[in-house]
Amino acid sequence: MAQGITKRSEDYSRWYLDVIAQADLAEHSSVKGCMVIKPNGYAIWEKIQAQLDKMFKETGHVNAYFPLFIPESYLRKEAEHVEGFAPETAVVTHGGGKKLEEPLVVRPTSETIIWSTYKKWIQSYRDLPILINQWANVVRWELRTRLFLRTTEFLWQEGHTAHATADEAETETRRMLEVYRRFAEEYLAMPVYTGVKTEAEKFAGAVRTYCIEAMMQDRRALQAGTSHNLGQNFARAFDVTFQNEVGEVDYVWATSWGVSTRLVGALIMSHSDDNGLIIPPRLAPLQAVVVPIWKSDEQMAKVVAHVSELTSTWKGLLDFKVDDRDQYRPGYKFNEWEKRGVPIRIEIGPKDIENNEAVLVRRDSGEKISVPQERLLDTIFSQLDAMQSALFERALALRQTHTFEQDDFSEFRKQIEEPGGFFWVHWCGSEKCEAAFQETSKATIRLIPFDERREDGRCIVCGAASSQRVLVAKSY
Amino acid sequence: MAQGITKRSEDYSRWYLDVIAQADLAEHSSVKGCMVIKPNGYAIWEKIQAQLDKMFKETGHVNAYFPLFIPESYLRKEAEHVEGFAPETAVVTHGGGKKLEEPLVVRPTSETIIWSTYKKWIQSYRDLPILINQWANVVRWELRTRLFLRTTEFLWQEGHTAHATADEAETETRRMLEVYRRFAEEYLAMPVYTGVKTEAEKFAGAVRTYCIEAMMQDRRALQAGTSHNLGQNFARAFDVTFQNEVGEVDYVWATSWGVSTRLVGALIMSHSDDNGLIIPPRLAPLQAVVVPIWKSDEQMAKVVAHVSELTSTWKGLLDFKVDDRDQYRPGYKFNEWEKRGVPIRIEIGPKDIENNEAVLVRRDSGEKISVPQERLLDTIFSQLDAMQSALFERALALRQTHTFEQDDFSEFRKQIEEPGGFFWVHWCGSEKCEAAFQETSKATIRLIPFDERREDGRCIVCGAASSQRVLVAKSY
Repeated sequence: MAQGITKRSEDYSRWYLDVIAQADLAEHSSVKGCMVIKPNGYAIWEKIQAQLDKMFKETGHVNAYFPLFIPESYLRKEAEHVEGFAPETAVVTHGGGKKLEEPLVVRPTSETIIWSTYKKWIQSYRDLPILINQWANVVRWELRTRLFLRTTEFLWQEGHTAHATADEAETETRRMLEVYRRFAEEYLAMPVYTGVKTEAEKFAGAVRTYCIEAMMQDRRALQAGTSHNLGQNFARAFDVTFQNEVGEVDYVWATSWGVSTRLVGALIMSHSDDNGLIIPPRLAPLQAVVVPIWKSDEQMAKVVAHVSELTSTWKGLLDFKVDDRDQYRPGYKFNEWEKRGVPIRIEIGPKDIENNEAVLVRRDSGEKISVPQERLLDTIFSQLDAMQSALFERALALRQTHTFEQDDFSEFRKQIEEPGGFFWVHWCGSEKCEAAFQETSKATIRLIPFDERREDGRCIVCGAASSQRVLVAKSY
Repeated sequence: MAQGITKRSEDYSRWYLDVIAQADLAEHSSVKGCMVIKPNGYAIWEKIQAQLDKMFKETGHVNAYFPLFIPESYLRKEAEHVEGFAPETAVVTHGGGKKLEEPLVVRPTSETIIWSTYKKWIQSYRDLPILINQWANVVRWELRTRLFLRTTEFLWQEGHTAHATADEAETETRRMLEVYRRFAEEYLAMPVYTGVKTEAEKFAGAVRTYCIEAMMQDRRALQAGTSHNLGQNFARAFDVTFQNEVGEVDYVWATSWGVSTRLVGALIMSHSDDNGLIIPPRLAPLQAVVVPIWKSDEQMAKVVAHVSELTSTWKGLLDFKVDDRDQYRPGYKFNEWEKRGVPIRIEIGPKDIENNEAVLVRRDSGEKISVPQERLLDTIFSQLDAMQSALFERALALRQTHTFEQDDFSEFRKQIEEPGGFFWVHWCGSEKCEAAFQETSKATIRLIPFDERREDGRCIVCGAASSQRVLVAKSY
């Protein structure tokens, strides 16, 4: 095994934590449930942020910032919302040395503080739509935490939009789901299924929750992003009305949507291997590392000078680093950059210089390619593209191999334990049969697909009529 | 007066709030002391962040993220630090429905949580330096708040670095002060004095606090950024030691430095006028707005098509907007963009098209310039540069006019009330005389300059010997 990394086949959870530790991405803090995101991990989050922010702005959204604190009474204004979130809040009872008249909740999500504000901003259809996103930290008290995947405090973005019609809100909800799908597949190189959550699984306060669901390498599902059609629920709770074009007064229609630092966990679990982290090239803070190789001091001077000359034109075109540290041997450096998930390694020694070549090594496949130096930069670019596609294809193949249509409940119960995977099953729509997945297999309905998988069948649990298969899996 | 904006000469505080309201930058939230940063205000903060982040990275820093919550006991580990910050903390006493064993403080600043973490990261000189910055929200319970300038929650960046020697820490502290000075002068177009805070004014826990101080248009000082040499104070408090190159064990040397959303307040107060906001071009989210002018529908179609054609090549080169809204008249639009501080307005009507010209209007001077259309984009660029310089020069002139050397205490007391300003005065160094400025004039020593203003003199309060003048002013 690679130094310090447990094999996936041996202990997947342990492997996940080892990859994080060896790539120096994050660690538990001394505050229960909260993590420290270390520079290597935060740099990946910055790449995720930059790309998502661009996509949000391209779809007409602007950023704003709302308070961290929410008066406790606000949370109570939407009945389902408080039921869902109150049990996991952190509560500020004292400020400036005094007991507060009303306790303040540290935001677990910002619908309530934002809709109490939108009330002041919206009078007429002319004030709509409002298309706002916020980058922020949120807190949800968690008993069992796991770095990136589930932490008491996490970083995220939350979009909160307001619309004049139900149709517009629905269009927005689906538009942002599509942004998430594109981001997951094109940047995270992570294939996702899209669909609707069941009533039991939807966001507390939403009319409908759409989601993207990905398969991790242990074949469990990870919910990677959600987009909620909130209907008029929050407008009613905060009495936000507007006058429409024909002069009638109506409640405003709302959406909210979010992804979080959990995506860093998804990235790690989708692609990394027993040698450590693998970062998809489009989200890699460092895309390539160049390791000059020498045996004597004389060679060192020559090779380092040559590499410096060779890479002098790369600046601004590629995120790269030359690792000319004197105190470490090449093998040590190879291992270090491998564990850190840098997509491409370039090796250049005296022989290579003589032959006007360099060796390019792909992190995902380990493939070694000799490249003429004048074509090196172009080859790096084409290999980064190739690796981005290869990671997606590999993840897709894994999902295909481990996705099953299953119509027999006892077979399902065996199969979900070993080999595990995603199961398209018929479901009658009852809460009781939904609960049976959890009770028998600790699995849940991950989503109801949009228009796919429509066919007549019988509920895998109770045998009642069903017109569509749903996706069931164990999940994070 | 411009609609909705009080004149500065009439009520400066009211003017400040009016400018913010009319430019739609921010508002008070329903949570006491916390503000909502609206999209127009947040866009300025994003420009500030992007530039500072670039400057931090150019000076070798990386970003990371540490928890929002700090165990109360951590705050107490550094005696001066707890004295300074404990009275203004927000305290979480309940989480997940239960009373916490130890209350958690919402970070007022992160030295304690970060140094408790650095303890795990640092063993040897090889682990140093650590050059980390964090973009985060912090909370300091404030009784009297003012949008952007002083709010209970605010957004900021906080650098926290660790070094092997006292010299390195000092160099870092001064390097970041210089980054702040450059940012203030070259981007905010705001001249600043740099220097050292007195013992009474320094950061709670620092050995020395350096600062940049700017003069606002009401001649009061605003502390716009601070850089602290923390010596070994936090390393001692958290027992963070390292082995140096010769094998000796020593405490680690520390710095911290920060600027906040207060800079948006500084920007507003430095440049805006009785017609509303003025944004320095280098930080303007929207650098130019083009207003097509027409009198008939026929003209409208023609002018809008012409403007669309003319500006089609500008995308990616300039942050601009064409305001072709049909329901508003040009005068309304001019007024709106003026209040919002867009640096340059372009007017193009049928006559201009005939003459192949456009009218360029500068937000700062109101100057109107006729420009041949083929030179329009170049002229916008040169006028943006000219405006950036002009704003700096205007602010510098204001400061020069209102900065005085004063050696007579009763004269000082009169002059600081009317006309007000910055006062270079001799001070003996005693706390008692320092307190006299506050007691008699509600003024403070803003800074002790570095090497300037050294001369023999007599303390303006007590007459004792002094070797240097210090800067005294009323402040925000």
